[in-house]
Amino acid sequence: MRLLNHIGRLYTGTRLGVVENAVLAIEGDRIAWAGPAEPGPPQEVRTRIEEEDSCGGALVTPGFIDAHTHPVYAGDRMAEIAQRSAGESYENIAGAGGGIGATVAATRQEPARELRELVAGRLSAWLRDGTTTIEAKTGYHLEREGELDAVGILTELGLDPSLPRVESTFLGAHAVPPGGVADTFIDEVVEWCGPAAAAGARFCDVFCDEGYFSVPQSRKVLAAGKRAGLIPRIHADELAHSGGSLLAAELGAQSADHLLYADEDDARALAEAGVVATLAPGTALAMGRMPPVHTFLDAGVTLALGTDHNPGTCGATSMSLVVALAVAAFGLSVDEALAAVTVGGARSLGLKDRGTVEAGKLADLVVWDAEHEGAFAWSYGLAPLEVMLGGRVTAR
Amino acid sequence: MRLLNHIGRLYTGTRLGVVENAVLAIEGDRIAWAGPAEPGPPQEVRTRIEEEDSCGGALVTPGFIDAHTHPVYAGDRMAEIAQRSAGESYENIAGAGGGIGATVAATRQEPARELRELVAGRLSAWLRDGTTTIEAKTGYHLEREGELDAVGILTELGLDPSLPRVESTFLGAHAVPPGGVADTFIDEVVEWCGPAAAAGARFCDVFCDEGYFSVPQSRKVLAAGKRAGLIPRIHADELAHSGGSLLAAELGAQSADHLLYADEDDARALAEAGVVATLAPGTALAMGRMPPVHTFLDAGVTLALGTDHNPGTCGATSMSLVVALAVAAFGLSVDEALAAVTVGGARSLGLKDRGTVEAGKLADLVVWDAEHEGAFAWSYGLAPLEVMLGGRVTAR
Repeated sequence: MRLLNHIGRLYTGTRLGVVENAVLAIEGDRIAWAGPAEPGPPQEVRTRIEEEDSCGGALVTPGFIDAHTHPVYAGDRMAEIAQRSAGESYENIAGAGGGIGATVAATRQEPARELRELVAGRLSAWLRDGTTTIEAKTGYHLEREGELDAVGILTELGLDPSLPRVESTFLGAHAVPPGGVADTFIDEVVEWCGPAAAAGARFCDVFCDEGYFSVPQSRKVLAAGKRAGLIPRIHADELAHSGGSLLAAELGAQSADHLLYADEDDARALAEAGVVATLAPGTALAMGRMPPVHTFLDAGVTLALGTDHNPGTCGATSMSLVVALAVAAFGLSVDEALAAVTVGGARSLGLKDRGTVEAGKLADLVVWDAEHEGAFAWSYGLAPLEVMLGGRVTAR
Repeated sequence: MRLLNHIGRLYTGTRLGVVENAVLAIEGDRIAWAGPAEPGPPQEVRTRIEEEDSCGGALVTPGFIDAHTHPVYAGDRMAEIAQRSAGESYENIAGAGGGIGATVAATRQEPARELRELVAGRLSAWLRDGTTTIEAKTGYHLEREGELDAVGILTELGLDPSLPRVESTFLGAHAVPPGGVADTFIDEVVEWCGPAAAAGARFCDVFCDEGYFSVPQSRKVLAAGKRAGLIPRIHADELAHSGGSLLAAELGAQSADHLLYADEDDARALAEAGVVATLAPGTALAMGRMPPVHTFLDAGVTLALGTDHNPGTCGATSMSLVVALAVAAFGLSVDEALAAVTVGGARSLGLKDRGTVEAGKLADLVVWDAEHEGAFAWSYGLAPLEVMLGGRVTAR
C-alpha cells in the first residue's frame, strides 16, 4: 500500500468537500483511505503502508472526466475554421466540399491502422492534461463498416494502460451521409446498433436538431440502441429548441448534451428523469449562446462538462481549460465546475467507481501545479504535476 | 545570413497577407527578406546565405505582442478567486483583507530580489507561449520606492536576452493605496512620473473608472507623465461608461484599454485621435460583458489584445489562447485577431520595428505547431515549435 502525503488541499467530491492537509492511501488500483493527515488513516490501514510519496503541498483532485468528445477522425479543417471566423456560412463551406462532409471523406479514406494512431495520439493529450476518463463518439464514417471499426478502435485503445479510460459511444446518426436520405439512413443506423454493442460500444447517441435528425428519427435510433443494450445519450436543443431534451427525459437517457436552447420545462423534465446535462463551454462560446446553466442547477439537474473536441470547431483536450471557461462563460463557481468534471462526469457516463476521492474508488488522481482550486479559474489551463490512473503514474 | 525555408504559410501582417510556401532570410537580429520560395530572394540576398533551416511546412508568424499585463506582484489570491466565482462580492473580499489590497501587502513585503525572480519566471512563460514583446505595468506597490523599484525590475529584465522584450508602464495610479485619499495620492503619483521615466518607464497608465480615479484625476497624472516624457495609456470605460476613452483621445494616448462600456462616440474619438483599443477577452469574459469590437473596427480603430495577466483574475500567459478567445467571445476573424496580436500590438506600444514579417524588422518569429492559422481558433492555446528573438532560437 502506498500513501500520498502532504496534499495541501484534497478535492474529494464527497460530503467531506475539500480536505486541507490530507493524505490518501492507495492499494492496487483503488483508493484505500482518504482524509485529514491528522489523525490520519486508522491503524489497520497504517500498518499496511509500504511506501510514502509527498505531494509537496499541492492540490489533488480525482482525474477529470471529459463527458463529450469526437476524437475518431482524420483530416484537418483549419482553413475552413479561419473562413467561418471571417463570416463565411457553414452552408457555403459545406457546399464547397468542406464541413463535416470533408471530415467524413478524409476519415473513410484513412486506413484503420493510421486512424487508430491518430486517435491514440489525441487520447494521450487528454491524459497529459489531467483527464483520466473520456467519453468518445464515432460518427465520421456514417457507413456500417467504418462506424463499427471506429467503435473497435475506441474499445481497443480503452484497454491501453498508457491512455485514459474510454467509454465509447456509437454515433452513427451524427449527420446524413453525403448523398443519403435521412429516413433511409436512420433505418440503416437502427440495424447497426446490435453490431456496435457487440464491438464494445456502451452508449448510443444521435444529433437531434434542425438540419440533422428529427425527434421521431432520433427516438427510433435510441430505442433500437436500447434494445441492443446501448444506453441513450443525445445531442439536444443545440441549434434550435427542437425537442431533444424532452426526448432524453422520455427515454431515460443518461445524458442530454449542449442544450443551448433548452428552457425551464426542459430543465424540469431532465431533473425528474435523472438525465445529466452535459455542457461544452467551448462550443457555446463558438455558437455565441450560453445554455441556461442556472436554470438547470435550480431545477436540480446534474451538470457534466466536455471539451466537445471535434475537427470542425474545437481542438481542446484540456478539461482544466474547460473548467476556466465554464466559470468565465457559464458563471459556474469553481466548486460547481469541479463537481461537473468529476462527480458529474461520472454520472453522465453512469460510472459508480470514479469521480470522487474515497475508499473503494479507482485511484485515478491528479496532482495539480497549484495549492488551491481557485487556480483553475485563474490559469486558463492549469497543468498537472502528475496524473495517476489506477494508482500508476502515467504522465508527469 | 540564415534562411528559414519550407514555411508552409507565412503570416506577414503586410500587404502580402499570408504567403504560402515561403522563405525568410535573417541577418543579425533583423529580417533581410521574406516572400514566396519561388522565385525566392534576389541574387544579392541569396549569395549571402550561409545556413538553411527547414520549418517543415509549418505556419510562421511574427512573435506575438501582449499589450496589457500586470506581472509585478507577489502572493496568491486563488482562494479569493474561488470565493468570487461562488458569488462573494469584491467589496466583501476586499473588506476582509483580500482584493488588490492583499496583493499590495504581499508585493510590498517581497524583497526586490525575490520579486525580480517571480517576474522573470512569469516572463519566461510568455516567451515559451510565443510572445516576444510584452507591455508590463507596475501598480502593486502604490508607494514611491516600490513603484520605482518595479520599473527598475522591468527595465532590467527587458535587457535579459532569455526573456521577451519588455515595454514598461508606470501605473502608480492603479488604485488608492490602503488608508490613502485619492486626491492626495494623485498629487504624489504626479511627483513620481519623472523618476519613473528616469528608471526606464516608457508609458504612464491610470485606472480611470468608477471606484478608482476620476477623469480629472486621471488627466492630472497622464499630463504629468507626458511632461516627464511618458507616453499615456489608460484603463478606460471598463467598469462603467466613465469617460476614459474621451480622455485618451483628448490626450492623444497611445492606447485605451478594456473599453467594455465604450460606445460609438468613443469609437469615433479613438479613431480620430489614433488611439489603439487594447482589449482583453479573458477579462471581458470574467466581467460578463464584451467590448463593442465591431463598432471599433467599423470606426477604423486599430485593435490590440492582451492577456491582462494579473494576480486577481487571470493567470494566462498564452496569446495564442487569447487569439482563440477573441475569435470565440469577440467574434473577430482569425485574421483580425492575428493582426491585433502582431501589427496592432506594435501600434499599441508605438513600436515600428516589429509586428510584421518584412525586411528590416526584428527577427522575432514563431514557428507554430500547425500548418494553417485557423488552428489558433481551433486549438485554444496553440503551442509554438520554436520561438525566435532577434533571430536567436530561445524556446522550443
